[in-house]
Amino acid sequence: MTLAFVNSPLDRCGNLRSDSVAITQLRVEQTSLTIQMAGDSVLFQNNAPHFLSGAVDNTILLGRDENNVHWFAKSVAPSDDLDFRHLRALASDGVLSAPVLSIMAQARSLLHWHERHGFCANCGAATVMADAGYRRHCDVCSADHFPRTDPVIIIAVRHGDNFLLGRQAAWTPGMYSTLAGFMEPGETIEQAARREVFEESGIKVGAISYVMCQPWPFPTNLMIGLIGDALNTDITIDPKELETARWFSRAEVRTMLDRTHPDGLTATHPIAIAYHILEAALKA
Amino acid sequence: MTLAFVNSPLDRCGNLRSDSVAITQLRVEQTSLTIQMAGDSVLFQNNAPHFLSGAVDNTILLGRDENNVHWFAKSVAPSDDLDFRHLRALASDGVLSAPVLSIMAQARSLLHWHERHGFCANCGAATVMADAGYRRHCDVCSADHFPRTDPVIIIAVRHGDNFLLGRQAAWTPGMYSTLAGFMEPGETIEQAARREVFEESGIKVGAISYVMCQPWPFPTNLMIGLIGDALNTDITIDPKELETARWFSRAEVRTMLDRTHPDGLTATHPIAIAYHILEAALKA
Repeated sequence: MTLAFVNSPLDRCGNLRSDSVAITQLRVEQTSLTIQMAGDSVLFQNNAPHFLSGAVDNTILLGRDENNVHWFAKSVAPSDDLDFRHLRALASDGVLSAPVLSIMAQARSLLHWHERHGFCANCGAATVMADAGYRRHCDVCSADHFPRTDPVIIIAVRHGDNFLLGRQAAWTPGMYSTLAGFMEPGETIEQAARREVFEESGIKVGAISYVMCQPWPFPTNLMIGLIGDALNTDITIDPKELETARWFSRAEVRTMLDRTHPDGLTATHPIAIAYHILEAALKA
Repeated sequence: MTLAFVNSPLDRCGNLRSDSVAITQLRVEQTSLTIQMAGDSVLFQNNAPHFLSGAVDNTILLGRDENNVHWFAKSVAPSDDLDFRHLRALASDGVLSAPVLSIMAQARSLLHWHERHGFCANCGAATVMADAGYRRHCDVCSADHFPRTDPVIIIAVRHGDNFLLGRQAAWTPGMYSTLAGFMEPGETIEQAARREVFEESGIKVGAISYVMCQPWPFPTNLMIGLIGDALNTDITIDPKELETARWFSRAEVRTMLDRTHPDGLTATHPIAIAYHILEAALKA
């Protein structure tokens, strides 16, 4: 199973967004599709996403696919009577194609931003959606607000043939992952990675290389995947962040990725970047 | 001259932030230093930053330096009677050491976020600063808000021995730079780079590699520096984004970086990452 959410086929049509006449026309096109989501979940009907088509107001433009179909998104009220499916479950169960799953992820991040940003952070007045969903404007103080993308570092730390993995108490029993954390203003990617690993585990990291990244739509993170070389081996965990952390041998990590560990330990799921940066670190 | 804003020496003391008693004590420590800023400018006195020390309320904790001095920041009102110096000018003129300049950049990004986020985007009520400046809390709807860091891709695009540079009409005459743009929700770094370059120049980019990054405090960007290989050469600029763009030979880029171009063309300033990813691309 491949990394989820990275296969969007859409042209985002950035220069159409401010053309409200064109956007209104595209919204009522019969070929246009509107994804309906409640929180992290997609509305389904008859085992397929239940798209609205035509005549939908105030939807967010996601982009145009290779068949010239325009994709939009809107939030709907959750309901126990309807078939809502969580985006993470959809990523693991393979019901949707990788491209459609990636479009859903874009929808989720943008819808979440609108749900949580109805008011102007600068003056407190209600804001209105603009640019087909890529801006909110305040008519009172004239401030423009743009969607957030929150960069997060995630790093496979190695020391010789051993790899540092930790787990949080809330996770599935036996599951370990690479360390991760939100970047802060004024930091480089590498500084943020060294800070997070040291805070959580007491391990100092020297050389760092970039491997790959993943947009993670819960709600709107950019996971920046790294490999780093540890400069020490004595672990001191931060119990507010981790339940435990320890070094695992290359062979043990292999069995955790392959789900063949004798004690049933695992190393996250292939939909998530942690799995893939560990794969890369094993090969490096 | 080296890349600016990447040399912070501070331990950010993340686990102290929620300890309001400790933070209050550190704020009144006589050794603590408080940077005073108005907009992008630092308050100076006698040709040096004018730090406040001791007894300052509601300042933002930046961190602790290697001499156990705690650094804080606060916004002050601009005044023509005082000596305020713009952070970008301070970066180019070399008055401040690289570490102090990097601390100022962290201060600027955090202060800007507070200035523009006094109200809850979720409900419109006034929010209060928490965690020594790394959170704002809404007592009405209980929402927590965290500082933004906006990822921006910036890419040196090459085709054989030629390099794609563009310029915006508002820039200093003769100055060119690598193309750049804000990432959007649901994109990878590589997808964002391909989208931006194609939108601005009509050039399609294939393989991309990560070079380095830079926090850019105007106001709170994370510049992610890349090198990419062009798949075509016919340029079609987006006139809303660029005044012009063209291919420059390796030798011409070298003279633009060195400020020895016969027509006086230049390729940004060494304080900015564009200069350094071009240097890396010339060597690659």
